[in-house]
This record gives sequence, structure tokens and C-alpha cells, in this order.
Amino acid sequence: MKALVYHGPGIKSWDDVPDPRIIEPADAVIGVDATTICGTDLHILEGDVPECAVGRILGHEAVGTVEAVGSAVTTMRPGDRVLVSCISACGRCRFCREGHYGQCLGGGGWILGHKIDGTQAEYVRVPFAENSTHPIPAGMDDESVLMLADILPTAYEVGVVNGGTEPGDTVVIVGVGPIGLSAILCARLFSPAHIVAVDLADARLEAAKQLGADVTINPAREDAVALVKSLTSGLGADVAIEAVGVPDTFEMCTRLVRPGGRVANVGVHGKPATLHLEDLWIRNVTITTGLVDTWSTPTLLKLVRSGQLEASKFVTHHFKLADIIEAYDIFSRANETAALKVVLHK
Amino acid sequence: MKALVYHGPGIKSWDDVPDPRIIEPADAVIGVDATTICGTDLHILEGDVPECAVGRILGHEAVGTVEAVGSAVTTMRPGDRVLVSCISACGRCRFCREGHYGQCLGGGGWILGHKIDGTQAEYVRVPFAENSTHPIPAGMDDESVLMLADILPTAYEVGVVNGGTEPGDTVVIVGVGPIGLSAILCARLFSPAHIVAVDLADARLEAAKQLGADVTINPAREDAVALVKSLTSGLGADVAIEAVGVPDTFEMCTRLVRPGGRVANVGVHGKPATLHLEDLWIRNVTITTGLVDTWSTPTLLKLVRSGQLEASKFVTHHFKLADIIEAYDIFSRANETAALKVVLHK
Amino acid sequence: MKALVYHGPGIKSWDDVPDPRIIEPADAVIGVDATTICGTDLHILEGDVPECAVGRILGHEAVGTVEAVGSAVTTMRPGDRVLVSCISACGRCRFCREGHYGQCLGGGGWILGHKIDGTQAEYVRVPFAENSTHPIPAGMDDESVLMLADILPTAYEVGVVNGGTEPGDTVVIVGVGPIGLSAILCARLFSPAHIVAVDLADARLEAAKQLGADVTINPAREDAVALVKSLTSGLGADVAIEAVGVPDTFEMCTRLVRPGGRVANVGVHGKPATLHLEDLWIRNVTITTGLVDTWSTPTLLKLVRSGQLEASKFVTHHFKLADIIEAYDIFSRANETAALKVVLHK
Amino acid sequence: MKALVYHGPGIKSWDDVPDPRIIEPADAVIGVDATTICGTDLHILEGDVPECAVGRILGHEAVGTVEAVGSAVTTMRPGDRVLVSCISACGRCRFCREGHYGQCLGGGGWILGHKIDGTQAEYVRVPFAENSTHPIPAGMDDESVLMLADILPTAYEVGVVNGGTEPGDTVVIVGVGPIGLSAILCARLFSPAHIVAVDLADARLEAAKQLGADVTINPAREDAVALVKSLTSGLGADVAIEAVGVPDTFEMCTRLVRPGGRVANVGVHGKPATLHLEDLWIRNVTITTGLVDTWSTPTLLKLVRSGQLEASKFVTHHFKLADIIEAYDIFSRANETAALKVVLHK
Repeated sequence: MKALVYHGPGIKSWDDVPDPRIIEPADAVIGVDATTICGTDLHILEGDVPECAVGRILGHEAVGTVEAVGSAVTTMRPGDRVLVSCISACGRCRFCREGHYGQCLGGGGWILGHKIDGTQAEYVRVPFAENSTHPIPAGMDDESVLMLADILPTAYEVGVVNGGTEPGDTVVIVGVGPIGLSAILCARLFSPAHIVAVDLADARLEAAKQLGADVTINPAREDAVALVKSLTSGLGADVAIEAVGVPDTFEMCTRLVRPGGRVANVGVHGKPATLHLEDLWIRNVTITTGLVDTWSTPTLLKLVRSGQLEASKFVTHHFKLADIIEAYDIFSRANETAALKVVLHK
Repeated sequence: MKALVYHGPGIKSWDDVPDPRIIEPADAVIGVDATTICGTDLHILEGDVPECAVGRILGHEAVGTVEAVGSAVTTMRPGDRVLVSCISACGRCRFCREGHYGQCLGGGGWILGHKIDGTQAEYVRVPFAENSTHPIPAGMDDESVLMLADILPTAYEVGVVNGGTEPGDTVVIVGVGPIGLSAILCARLFSPAHIVAVDLADARLEAAKQLGADVTINPAREDAVALVKSLTSGLGADVAIEAVGVPDTFEMCTRLVRPGGRVANVGVHGKPATLHLEDLWIRNVTITTGLVDTWSTPTLLKLVRSGQLEASKFVTHHFKLADIIEAYDIFSRANETAALKVVLHK
Repeated sequence: MKALVYHGPGIKSWDDVPDPRIIEPADAVIGVDATTICGTDLHILEGDVPECAVGRILGHEAVGTVEAVGSAVTTMRPGDRVLVSCISACGRCRFCREGHYGQCLGGGGWILGHKIDGTQAEYVRVPFAENSTHPIPAGMDDESVLMLADILPTAYEVGVVNGGTEPGDTVVIVGVGPIGLSAILCARLFSPAHIVAVDLADARLEAAKQLGADVTINPAREDAVALVKSLTSGLGADVAIEAVGVPDTFEMCTRLVRPGGRVANVGVHGKPATLHLEDLWIRNVTITTGLVDTWSTPTLLKLVRSGQLEASKFVTHHFKLADIIEAYDIFSRANETAALKVVLHK
Repeated sequence: MKALVYHGPGIKSWDDVPDPRIIEPADAVIGVDATTICGTDLHILEGDVPECAVGRILGHEAVGTVEAVGSAVTTMRPGDRVLVSCISACGRCRFCREGHYGQCLGGGGWILGHKIDGTQAEYVRVPFAENSTHPIPAGMDDESVLMLADILPTAYEVGVVNGGTEPGDTVVIVGVGPIGLSAILCARLFSPAHIVAVDLADARLEAAKQLGADVTINPAREDAVALVKSLTSGLGADVAIEAVGVPDTFEMCTRLVRPGGRVANVGVHGKPATLHLEDLWIRNVTITTGLVDTWSTPTLLKLVRSGQLEASKFVTHHFKLADIIEAYDIFSRANETAALKVVLHK
């Protein structure tokens, strides 16, 4: 088959590789109908993820059709349409039993396109298949469902739910790239009184407005802390969601929240931040971090299906799978191309 | 001043009575700008509420203007616009300290128009004034705010929040009079996948649809349990809200919920119901009851103000306060008049 | 092998039967080192559980040694000591993913000794073995661990945790047979201020005292509601745990709790109860029911191991497995024999 | 009367000062029967708390007898024994209505001995008296109750409850001075499997053992992270409580917790810490900070009364109030004198 192979920092190609096959009784092989590229794939190509070996097929998101299943798989059969989650789950370890699949101790977690071959290919082997995929209800379109493989559950669980978002809250989202925009869509499910988007790029702030932010702040020319305080009787935001992954934006979040507020970190960080405990110790602040667990995927499927969540709003570009090199180019120059999510179809 | 006085079962009149005055240091006297009539007022007039003495001024909901305050009141002053909550709170007893104001042990709870004179009058004395009223932000209209005195916090707290409503849920509301319709509006704040309205009156089901129910069921000609199961892969609803107050509808709710589901009782009951523990013991069902505490009033004010909650949707009739006898007539014949909430203005 | 076989109402025998063998890839066959008899087994023998077919091997609790595993089982191997839980879990259905294993939709739930052959035998086949057993840490004795197969997680989850027990609470346990006594042990883990045991048998009340109840009430000669009110400034209990399974005790629980309190039903009921909604609608009461999910088993294992939970306190009689007919006799005449739990050893 | 007056950094004296009197209707004047010295008082004397003006009477903890009450006070009367909480609560602001008294916006919070005169005196004026004191049940001794004015609710709320401590957990407490020792007592209320005490002083570790820690670690000669991992199958602690207030111990806590664990900061910090988000972003960690709210004081009173919480275990020294200068000397040289809490009696 054909697949997008990582050949070391900066090098990838669309190669002929052997077809995947069932290895373990709980495996499935899935024919990929649609996949996408994640910011993490770019990190791997920059050489920032040393666990990802040279020769690896990238990609951890897919919508596909079951091709073959192992002997222990009883609830999936060839021909079924499934969502392949970015998180695989052994289903038996302590963390899987608690729903914390992202922390799986039994060989799952984020493994696709990372520790084993991934979804940017014509076929993909998915271990622990019954706990790592979701059946797709009839009538749902591939692109909407594909957004539930990673970005929407991440925004929902690690951002909005960890942030404890409640009706009437003021929620500030710092960084409104694809993940921050997803957080806007997901926050709206809880009817906050205000959704405030903070970003240095006006084009992103414009997109944030269209997706539901009622206040936008560009800290290059506005004082985010002062503006949020003026919205909240001087107290600060109930929830601040960090969706960038650098020290400055994290520290801004800790200044944006009110006493008793919550900072939900979603960003992937490469460096430590400074935590101003000399101010924060007395302010009853809660800070959370997290990799997505995808416990919310069935919930989000219901919400997409019933029309509450317009999951495909982020998809800006569509390609054939065979044109993935071009898709990578467009996606990696998002500032110029205005790409949010690019979808690759079979 | 003029006031609506209860003179015993079936008898009320619009009388001249002495003006209320400050008695305790924590009191305020409020000039009533708008008030409304509650189903409970009709119960009192039917003689069903023996704690309500003959001679009592009825009414427990108002929007008004502070006329005078006691010596201990420091955060309200004459001229302030305030919402008078149906629940008064001493603010110091165990239950008030826990936010369970409806269960106040210090002389509060539901007292207005019940144990002391109420709001269907030109003026009303409000005890524990700072904990029993809410300042009204500038620019909010009286009718929307008035709906936060009782009906919306009741639907929100006792129905939607006690029911544990979450995004993606299927919520069934049994009985869609004013309180059930309020529950629809409040449930929408949590983005359920389905809101199912159940009622014997088609006109009410039509109103339910307009307010946000996507499925309506008339049990006179449809099997509610079967329809809800068909919506939910055979499992049943996540949440069932009882908003009638009779044994049959309560028992229907316990049949409508899925294993692990919740029944939130909002209805005021006069008789016991049968609890089918022989079926329910194994089904992980949670049943809640409750009088409103009004802890949610500040939240609901924010939601009305930011446009998430269209609180005045229920108001069908408007009167002058002096025409309250006519308003009672219209409201008490709701089936003929299609009255939901009637508002009386100064 | 030998096994205890149900031959229809009132009839059981210790028979020669074929050895169980691996059928599905996720199965294990476990050699039974210790098992016990549950009140439910007596119900089956009384003919009250029609789903249990004639010819069934009874029993749903065991400590054993892995004899053989299916091809999909990777984390268990022959020779491992395991706890066989009363609840089997497919691990993949919606309820299993949420930790509600008792409601498993994929073929699990309470199946052992009920829908498939059980543990009162020399060997037992356990489906979904990795999600239906727990490895036993070295150094733990069989009898303590065996109590975690059903009775202690039931008391902990369905009684104490559903009841929302917190430090300083007054917890009333109505019915102090084995399950009620277990609830006393489990409630103590949360440091209530008072544990009140209610039972008609003074011998049981004596046992309750020894296990940690500080107040005992025999309703044959004392007014339980009045006594609990006198302990709680007139308010009532924070938590009432029903551990009998008849309408009277359930109804007593609803009278024992304070406004805002919780009734946790653990008892297995055969008849409906009356729910006095005419009193309860205004009292903010929460009522829960449930079959055990056994999510707490790993927690309880840690607590037994670290000495916080003396799990074997309930074991009053010890037999050889071959003497199980005698053990049934002793257990079924608990009032005369003072039997709580009887353990059958290999 | 006599009082301990702060005269600027390093200077205090036992002075004659005017008796306090009722100023506001909600005030009470309390005769001090017992008071104590807090680490915060030493901070003030070191000049670290600039909000505390020269001339201030210090102290924010007392057990006393009501001497006089303002006109709005109806539930306290002269002669009543009360606990004076370190936190005063207006009872009406948004945060007080939510139980977050420590963040009171209406003039309360930590004000005694800080922004207004405090409790190290023969009498003290307490504003918002009904929401800032607790009646003392008959038969409780002054010293036990006094420990509920600050140190025990702080350890319970900000440490143990914010940490989400549950039965079976491994709880690590970093720093076992008076507040860390209190956290041990409070953590035991939730039956953790292990309580690990970490401190550089062996004498404190010895005290920790006597109060309930089952593992002690001196990081001067042991690797705390490695030892905690060895206790927890390599995962780390469920809960880490920071009770020192310096960057190193906070950072140690973030390394001690398992994926999904919680760090509860109790220490008062003067400097920022480094937050290693490059490691933590993926580990689902929750970090909390907080000033005590004292919502738990009624709960802790019940626990002391029923014998679950031995609150006076920390009291090492007893003085007459007039000897407070000597008591300060003993308390400030805790390393030499082994002082934990010193109590000053009338």
C-alpha cells in the first residue's frame, strides 16, 4: 500500500510499504477513508519527538472501514464504518478502567503514528480495536466525524471540562488556532455568558468571532487582563484555557482568572513556565493539565448527530490521500494559507 | 396601600391595608414595580396550604425599588432596583451557609405570601433583605428579571441541575406547563441531544416545541416509554424531570430513565406515589426532590443579560397591579386562556 | 470435577460435572481455592430468580488460581492468584467504558452462577477474564480477599458512596445482616461522627456495635426516627442506608434523613414501596438504587492490604468445599447459627 | 484592657489599650478565654505583611465568651461560648454566598489581627459576628476548639479536600510543621492507604509518625520521588500536599504525584516557583492553591466532639495570656523548643 513515512527530521515521503495485517487477537485492520494532519505531526517532522522512530508511518486520526479483525474481536466486522481515535486503550489497566485512556499502562495511549504505524496510509492496524475505535452511526459525514478523532475531544475534555465551565461563566481562550477554536465550539455547549478569544493574529480572532466568541483581544495592542476584569466586575475570568503552549500565554492565564477560577492547560509545552505562587497561593486557583482521554467521543458523536456541534467548521482544505505531501505543505504554512484542518480523502 | 389579601378558601380581595415598615435591622421595604401570580397562590386559595393564615397578603415574586432599609443593611439603599426572591435567607444558619436557602432554619425559606405578607401589593417588607434580594444590573427589563424570582431558578436547580443534565443527554420533561417549559429553556443551557416534552395537552406540546423540545409525546395516544427507548438505543432517558405533581407522572418518570439515569422531581405532590423498587433496585437510578434554593439566581441574571436565556418567553399577559383580580381570573383558567405567566405592573 | 448444581426450587446437590474449558479467546479457567455462599444463592434456591436455569452451577464469588487462558488474554497466566468478581465486564460497551460494569450490555454483569455456571465448583470458566478478575498482591489471605468479590464492594459503592458519606456525618444503617455490617465497616472509612445501626435482632445490633456502630436501635421497642433526630439537633441523618429489601425499612429510611439527606438503597426488593412525595417533595432528598459495579475493588484491595479494612471480620464459619451442602445448611439458618459469611476452602 | 500590639518590624508589646466596643449592628465583642500564635503573626513581626499597620493588635484565633452584641445580632447573646474564626464573612457578597468566605468581597476575609485589631487581647470586636463565629457545644474543651480557628480547617480544606483525598490513596505531605501535622490528622479522616511525611527535621518526622504517617522520608538523605514510586507500583502519589511555602518543596510535589494526581498547595509563598509544563502538560495533573474559607469548621467541631479528630494533639505549651511575650519567644524558636501550638489562657 501507500503511506506517508517519516524518514528523520525534515524528511517524509509517500512510499510503497507492506500492507498491515492482524498480529494480535484484539487487532483490526482499517481501510482509511479520511485522515488529517495534526500539529503534532509537524513536531515529529521537526525532530522534537524522539520516541518516533525513523521509518514510522505518521498520523493518529482516521475515519475508515473495517477490513479485517482478530480472533478476539466480536463487536466489529469487515465493512463497518469506524472512527479511529488518537488514543488506543488496552481496556484492562488501572487507568483504562478509570476512563483515563490517555494514560493507558497496557500498551495503549497515544501510539498511532508515534510508537506504531499510523493513519496517513491506505490501511492501518489498530491494536485493542474494540476499545480504540467507535462505530459511526448511519448518515454522518466523514469530515465531521474525523474531527472527533483528536481535536474536539481534546478541546472538550482538557479545555472545557477540566476548566469546569458552567452556564453564565466568562471563559477566556488564549490562542485561537484549531485547538482554541475547537474550545470555543465546545465551551458554547455549556452556555457561558462570555467567550473571550485572545490571539496575536487578527485573522484568527475573526474566525473566533464567527465560531462564537463575543469578545476578542489582541494583546499586541490591548491589555487582556484589564479587559477581562472590566467584563467581570473586576474579578477576572471563571475559566482560562491555554491553547498555545508557551510560558507567556500560560502565565497570562494565571493572571486572567478570578479568585476561585480555573486554568485549563491544553497547549503542548516544551519549556517550563513561572508559577507566581507569591500571588496565587491565596487566590484559590486550580490549574489542570492533560492529554486527551477520549472518554467524551461518544458524547460528541451524539452532539454532532443532533446538530449541537458543527464539527466540520474547521475544515478549510480537502485533498486526495495521494496528495498528502501538498496537504502537508499547505497545513504547515497556516499563517499564509489560513489552513485550519486539512482533510485527506481516499 | 393596596394589596391582594387572602380571606380564606376561595376568597380574596384588593384591599386597603397599612403600609409595611421596617421592623428588624436587616429588613427592607420594597416598592413593587412588577409581580406575578404562581400556581402556589391558587393552591392557597383552594385552602390547601393551612400555614397561610387568613388576612395574609399573597405573592412571593417581585421586581421593585428599595423604599427603606433597616439599620443593619449596608449594601442596599433607597432607589436601588432589586429582584425579590421567592426564598428569604437568614444567611447564618447551617443550611444558608451551605447555600440551601430553601431549607433555612433561621426564619427564612418560603415565607413571603405564606407565613408573612407578600408581594402582591404596592409595598412589601422583606426580612434578611441583603440575602433575600438581588441587585438588578442596569438595562434589564422588569419582566425578564421577574421570571427569576421563582420559576426559572426552580426549573434550573430542582429540575435541570438536580437531574445532572449534560451535553448529549436525552432529557424528558413530563408536564409542560410554565414550570416544564422553564425546564426546557434551562435544559438547553447544557446542550442535550434531545429534549422530549410529554403532556396531555397538544397546545402545551406546541409551546414546548417552540421553546426547544425536539420531540413531543402525548401519552393519551402514544407510548412515552416506547418512544423514548426508540430514541435512545433501547436504554431510556438520561434525565426525566417531573413537572406535574401526581403519582402517575412520577411513576412514568421512573420508567422513562435508563439504567444509571436520574429522575428530578419538581412537581408539588399531595399524595404518595408507588416506587417500584422490585424493578428499580438493580437499575442504579437516582431520584431527587427539592424546593428551590435560588443559589442560581445570580447565574441566571448573567444568562438573561448576555442573551442565553430568554426569560420573558413565558409571559403571555400583562396587567396593571390594580387589575390583579382580573389577572387571577385569567391565570386560573389557563386551559381556556392559554395563560402561562401573567405580569402585574405598578 | 465436583460442583454444586441447582436442580430446581429447593433442590441442589454436589455433583460430578464436566470440567469447564476455554470457549472464547478472552476466557480464563480458574481453579477455585475459596468460595462462599450469598443470600442471592438462597433466593435462587427458593425459585425467586427464574433466569437461573435448572442445571446451573451456583456461586458468584471466588478466590482462585489461573488454570488456563484464552488466546486473547495477555495479562494473566496459569498459576496467578486472582479474585473472581461477582460482576463480569465485557470492557467495551458503553456502560463498561463508564465503569458501570454491573449494567454491562456486552454479555457481562452478574452472570456467574446465574446465567452461566458459577464458582461453587472446583473450577470455573470466567468470560472477559481480564476485566472480570483482579490479581491478588502477595501476602494477602484468601478469606479477606474473598469478601471483596461481592459483599464489600456492594456495601461500599451502593451504600456508602452512593449515600455521599462524608466526615462528620450521621449515617444510619437499617438492617445489619452481613451487608449492613459491611456498610458499617465501609462507612468508617469516611469518619462519620455517628454510625447508627437499626435492626430487630439484638444479636445483630451487638455485632454492629463491635464493628463500629456507636448507637444501636431496635425498632421493636424504640422510635428510630425520634432517636436519630435527638442525635442530630432535630434534623435527621445525613445518610440512611437500606440493607433489608422490604417496603417498611425503605420507608423508614426516607423518614430518617434530614432535609438535603440521602437514602442509599442496597436491599434487593421483591415488592414496591410507597414513596411519600407529599412530604418529600420539599425536602431536597436524594434516593439511589444500584447493583454493584465493582469499580471499587482495587481500592478495597489496597485498604485491606494496608490494614484500614478488616475484611475477614464477617467470616464466621469455615468448611471444605466438599462440605458445601452442610455449609448451605448452616448459612440458611443464620438466625440459629449466627452465621454471617461461610467460607469454603479447596 | 491589655493587648499584644505590633509596633513595627521586630517590635511588639503587651500594652494597655482602650476596650473594644460595638461599632456596627452586626458586631459582637468577645471576651477572649484562649488564643494562640500563628506562623503568620511571626511573618507580620518580620515586616512581611505591609497591610498590617503599626499599632495593630495581633491574633486571628480565639475561643471566647460573648460580652456584647450589636442591634442586628439575634442568634448570639452575652455569655455564649464561641469560636472566633480566622476568617470573617460578610455573608452577603458573591463569594460568601458560595461558601468562599476567605475571598469575601464585603469587608471580611482575613481581617482580624491584620486589617483590624485581633484576638491577642482581653477582648476583641468581631464584625459580621454571626457569620464569623461558631457556637461551642457544651462539654468541649477550649484548647481543642481553638485549633479549629485556623490550623485544622486550613489543613482540611486547602490540603486534604482540595487534594481530593480518597480511601486507599497514597498521600504525601511535604513539610510536617504544625500545618503539615494537621494535614496528617485530617487526611486520616479519609482512610488513605499510606500517609507519607517528608521533612528535613527528624524530630518532626517522629511527630508525624506518632500522628499517623506510616512512611517518613528525610530528603537530606533519601530520594523522596524514588521512595514514593516504590510504594505506588512506580506511579507516584495520588495526592501531594505542600506545607512549607518555598519553590523547592512545591516543585518536589509536582514530581511526586502520579498521572492524574493532585498537588494541593497550603504553604504561604513569597517567591515564584518553576512549573515544569514540559513534563506536566501530558500528565493530567491538578494543582490547587487557597486561603482557608472555614466552611468546614462545623464539620470539624462534630468530629472533635465525637472523638474522630484529636485536635489538641498539637498543643505543646500553655501560658497565661499575660505571659504572651514569653509565649512568642518559645513559639518563634520552635526548632529549639519543639513548640507546635502554644495556647494562651485568660
